[in-house]
Amino acid sequence: MLNQQPNLDLMFQALADPTRRAMIDRLSRGPASVSELAKPFAMSLPAVVQHLQALENSGLVTSQKVGRVRTVQIQPDTLSLAEQWINDRRTAWSRRLDRLGDFLAETADEPQP
Amino acid sequence: MLNQQPNLDLMFQALADPTRRAMIDRLSRGPASVSELAKPFAMSLPAVVQHLQALENSGLVTSQKVGRVRTVQIQPDTLSLAEQWINDRRTAWSRRLDRLGDFLAETADEPQP
Repeated sequence: MLNQQPNLDLMFQALADPTRRAMIDRLSRGPASVSELAKPFAMSLPAVVQHLQALENSGLVTSQKVGRVRTVQIQPDTLSLAEQWINDRRTAWSRRLDRLGDFLAETADEPQP
Repeated sequence: MLNQQPNLDLMFQALADPTRRAMIDRLSRGPASVSELAKPFAMSLPAVVQHLQALENSGLVTSQKVGRVRTVQIQPDTLSLAEQWINDRRTAWSRRLDRLGDFLAETADEPQP
């Protein structure tokens, strides 16, 4: 399940669920086993595993099984891709507003006919 | 449809679709009418309106109807909330790595018994 190609559809889909966001939040404080991740949630282990699968398919987390324990960890580079996509659009908007501001300031400075 | 409360589930859900991301991308370059937004897509107007509804419900865009034209614009503050949620988790992870690095450096400096 390692080396998934990052995919914005799957990333944002993975982030659209409160349980999966809580898992990402927990993992931002360090790697965790599947049972540790399951603990705060009143849901069956298969349901937890399904959420983890969605996170892993999106590339936001990876997991490794050593012996009988599967350890999950966050992939900050994939999180960064999702963040960057939003940031690029937000800054494009700000730059546009700045240019509009400059244009209005320049026109205000021009002598009236 | 104005003054929707921002909701991370709806925001990330809205961003999980390539058509809706293309609309956000277009709107980052300035407001647009519904028909302008529809132009690049080979889909029916009702399908376009449904995507816009999802964007508007998420708070990522707002629209205003003047006469017969509905103009859509991006809401950078809502985009910022989604971006910030990701950023907070990513930086929590980096800080943890930094602390781990400091700890390892300190232990390496200690004289061997």
